[in-house]
Amino acid sequence: MPMNSQSYELGVATSSIREIAAYAAARKAQIGPQNVFDFSLGNPSVPAPPEVRASIERSLALDATALHGYTPAAGLPEVRKAVAASLNRRFMTSYDAGDVYLTCGAAASIAIVLNALVSPGDEVIVIAPYFPEYRVWIEAAGARCVEVRADERTFQLDVDAVARAVTEHTRAVLINSPNNPVGTIYPREDLERLGRVLDECGRELGGQVHLIADEPYREISYGAEVPWVPDAYGRTVVCYSYSKSLSLAGERIGWVLVPKTNPEHDELVPAVAGSGRKLGFVCAPALFQRVVADCVDVPSDVAAYAKNRAALTEGLSQAGYTYVEPQGAFYLWVKALEPDAKAFFRQARELELLPVPSDSFGCPGWVRVGYCVSHDTIVNSIPAWERLAQRYGRRHG
Amino acid sequence: MPMNSQSYELGVATSSIREIAAYAAARKAQIGPQNVFDFSLGNPSVPAPPEVRASIERSLALDATALHGYTPAAGLPEVRKAVAASLNRRFMTSYDAGDVYLTCGAAASIAIVLNALVSPGDEVIVIAPYFPEYRVWIEAAGARCVEVRADERTFQLDVDAVARAVTEHTRAVLINSPNNPVGTIYPREDLERLGRVLDECGRELGGQVHLIADEPYREISYGAEVPWVPDAYGRTVVCYSYSKSLSLAGERIGWVLVPKTNPEHDELVPAVAGSGRKLGFVCAPALFQRVVADCVDVPSDVAAYAKNRAALTEGLSQAGYTYVEPQGAFYLWVKALEPDAKAFFRQARELELLPVPSDSFGCPGWVRVGYCVSHDTIVNSIPAWERLAQRYGRRHG
Repeated sequence: MPMNSQSYELGVATSSIREIAAYAAARKAQIGPQNVFDFSLGNPSVPAPPEVRASIERSLALDATALHGYTPAAGLPEVRKAVAASLNRRFMTSYDAGDVYLTCGAAASIAIVLNALVSPGDEVIVIAPYFPEYRVWIEAAGARCVEVRADERTFQLDVDAVARAVTEHTRAVLINSPNNPVGTIYPREDLERLGRVLDECGRELGGQVHLIADEPYREISYGAEVPWVPDAYGRTVVCYSYSKSLSLAGERIGWVLVPKTNPEHDELVPAVAGSGRKLGFVCAPALFQRVVADCVDVPSDVAAYAKNRAALTEGLSQAGYTYVEPQGAFYLWVKALEPDAKAFFRQARELELLPVPSDSFGCPGWVRVGYCVSHDTIVNSIPAWERLAQRYGRRHG
Repeated sequence: MPMNSQSYELGVATSSIREIAAYAAARKAQIGPQNVFDFSLGNPSVPAPPEVRASIERSLALDATALHGYTPAAGLPEVRKAVAASLNRRFMTSYDAGDVYLTCGAAASIAIVLNALVSPGDEVIVIAPYFPEYRVWIEAAGARCVEVRADERTFQLDVDAVARAVTEHTRAVLINSPNNPVGTIYPREDLERLGRVLDECGRELGGQVHLIADEPYREISYGAEVPWVPDAYGRTVVCYSYSKSLSLAGERIGWVLVPKTNPEHDELVPAVAGSGRKLGFVCAPALFQRVVADCVDVPSDVAAYAKNRAALTEGLSQAGYTYVEPQGAFYLWVKALEPDAKAFFRQARELELLPVPSDSFGCPGWVRVGYCVSHDTIVNSIPAWERLAQRYGRRHG
């Protein structure tokens, strides 16, 4: 191999989410978009709020040299200050601009934090099912990805299982609540128990385990509280993105927060900066940094997702499917009607239904149905879901 | 060290360019901006052309969901096609969208290409003096950075020295023309000789040496031809950015071109995609992808830099300085008036002159004077340059 084999393999083995999305696009061109039920991607179906456009228009009146020029690597000081102030208002914290490092979205945030924390030989724990790129970023940073299964029934954190998986090589546990792909939100008491367990493990094993809270779906909750993770555990780093909350997935804007309360704060802040530097991130996109400052407190439009969630869960419930009641994010985790999720997917595909088999997420037997689609797609898909259930001999409700 | 030591060290040892820029900002606040001659940064002083604003305004009329959503990892097909078509018109090539991978600027392009190509134990050759982040990205990709000095007198390519430095571990040679920090442009015959030499080395050593052409300054030329590097050597990959040509440094938009003529094209294209994926780049910023499609043929405004270049070279020439006549980019490479460039910098700083000592670029005895500043800064700095020369006993021309 005349090139880097890890990069080559990752380029050849495209993610199955992207693969299904590409199939969906081709199929739509073939039989008409209204006849294909594409539940593959996590691309927001709600437009960015009008405040985003207003902010961009305001910026365009600024001097173009200042507007589009380099910003400091960590972002414009006033934007970082606005982010910290917003967090302080919401979570009664006392962060300041120095704790916030603006990034090109959550993927960048996670890659940067992992490359700041881990060294070859380290281990990072993920909770299966998990977003498949976690493994890519962990292994690219030189660490080993250790899967710990969520509770089999509720898909909530299995804190005891995490405790059993921690070794002296564990550098971090990576969690995601509201969760992709399941839609669970981890309750405060579970996070606090996890915090106590990680503290104990750290003391016993002489290591220092960080908790990386990946929170792009924080604002997409259907009522449940999304607890502030640094309150539950000191060594927490938060990775955030405006991809979902402001529907800016393609603009690549988010942040890393190293809370002042993290005992490693003073070493982690430069390590995050150095990590961003070595990965080739010069600064977050300047225009959208300013959008963040202007829109940091603009509420997310959850209503459209809530409406889709209601229609989808009602339809699937009546058709006899088992699923995890989603508390947040915009995915429904549905039990496949046979043990092999990929075989179930192929049956679904024959009826133009395109969810993502759970194998991609490190877990057999389920599919992820992304309901960040038009409401019509949800409603019109229900008869196909019913026919699919009938193929497996299920009856209505 | 509870974290990654390479990241930590990079975060603590900030680049001396950024350090001088920070000093300049503080000093301006202290004694007034008009009294500080800050030549440290490469931030364009020419505003983005009006076509950029027009393009953004046009995009804002689009559906916001489509506008700001994820794009394919390699970029929007129509944008990649527009970039390829523009190159084809200019260089009589026949590239297509599949050869172009949009990135978050030149830093991302270079980091992605290096991580696509190199494996631990490989070597990458740079031509000293060189942009200091080259070493950071090469070492972060796990390779060894091998410095080859440019011709001592002209600062042009020393092809024989490159030939001597190539070993069986050499995976790539990284060049930058128009050059930062010197302002040289490599002529066609030198690139062709380099191409022949790399071909021979490859055959003799059984390796395959890639040429990475980093070209953010391609459009900033004061008359000299900037040859198209893939014409001179098959195994070329081009890294480009709109930071300088469209004055969009903060927006992070550029591309990697793997020319169809590169014999490794079919392996390199997926390796580039996999590398971008593992570093955490999901896609280039969507709004500015569209700006690129609209502005791909908008000419750069070189006139302001040419005017600065004329005033600066005339002033320094009269004051008795030696420098390399810049053919492109917006830096003047000036011989320090004592062997120690840092000591010379400290003398300059006392007169509020802030160039960057050449040690940062892997070469002793010179300073880089970035003339991407206001014309007034150039004109008003000349008396200080004269006083500095007088301190060293130089007389007027």
